[in-house]
Amino acid sequence: ATITESKSFSTTVKAPYPGHKPDKLTHLHFYFHDIVSGDKPTSVQVANGPTTNSSATGFGLVAVVDDKLTVGPEITSEEVGRAQGMYASADQNKLGLLMAFNLVFTKGKFSDSTVAMYGRNPVLSKVREMPIIGGTGAFRFGRGYALAKTLVFNITSGDAVVEYNVYIWH
Amino acid sequence: ATITESKSFSTTVKAPYPGHKPDKLTHLHFYFHDIVSGDKPTSVQVANGPTTNSSATGFGLVAVVDDKLTVGPEITSEEVGRAQGMYASADQNKLGLLMAFNLVFTKGKFSDSTVAMYGRNPVLSKVREMPIIGGTGAFRFGRGYALAKTLVFNITSGDAVVEYNVYIWH
Repeated sequence: ATITESKSFSTTVKAPYPGHKPDKLTHLHFYFHDIVSGDKPTSVQVANGPTTNSSATGFGLVAVVDDKLTVGPEITSEEVGRAQGMYASADQNKLGLLMAFNLVFTKGKFSDSTVAMYGRNPVLSKVREMPIIGGTGAFRFGRGYALAKTLVFNITSGDAVVEYNVYIWH
Repeated sequence: ATITESKSFSTTVKAPYPGHKPDKLTHLHFYFHDIVSGDKPTSVQVANGPTTNSSATGFGLVAVVDDKLTVGPEITSEEVGRAQGMYASADQNKLGLLMAFNLVFTKGKFSDSTVAMYGRNPVLSKVREMPIIGGTGAFRFGRGYALAKTLVFNITSGDAVVEYNVYIWH
């Protein structure tokens, strides 16, 4: 039986076997809309620490997110996918989020493929780099990095638009 | 001093040094038991968002899990390990979980080795792919992917049996 048909718990084969050498570099450019206000927020708080409300950085806040990704900076421009996952406010001094997100693409040739992003987002820095640590479908075995730059932050509503440039070797 | 004996905070060496080229492909086949019912659930809710209970997808729900992995589809068949980690319901429209799990093996040659799985699980899809982003012990430097297929979902109890085929280059 080949490696994919084996029914036992585990089967290990030595090289040569179908391996995966990255042979493509893809650049994705989109806008990420973090909506915390209104009646249909796409980013909601699910947990907090004992001092989150008194902390200057909201340390301990945990949120679950299903943020819209669009082609252009306007939230009404064409949707290309969603950023689905969680973030935690994990820096007691300078606003810094642990980001655990899957970028789920819903349009075009990458539809139904996902990119796994996982890293630290010092939100107030001009450009933030976060690792791409994996992917599925077209992005299987993907690795690379995302660069995030805040385009708009609405102080009163708390909503934000962040421009993403993602580079994936897959 | 070699790289492993250095006591200072950091030591960096240039090539040549002992590297790691994946030279094995391992296929793991097992059944994952998600037990939410009864007096000893292995999957428990730890947080939720303001609208989780009214959301069709339970958006915002966060659970911590220590689910049993067995050789066969019956939960009474031989245990080979546990799936330990968290998932968050991170899709407002179509049930989709952010999965952050370590697959901890307890039997046979992979005992005490772990596999790090992190990705999106659109639970209602027939077969779901999730990235394997790392591993420890026998799976150090491991990368690959997991394919998950629901075998049984008990509507009344909420319990599920999911068949996993995991492929790891390590």
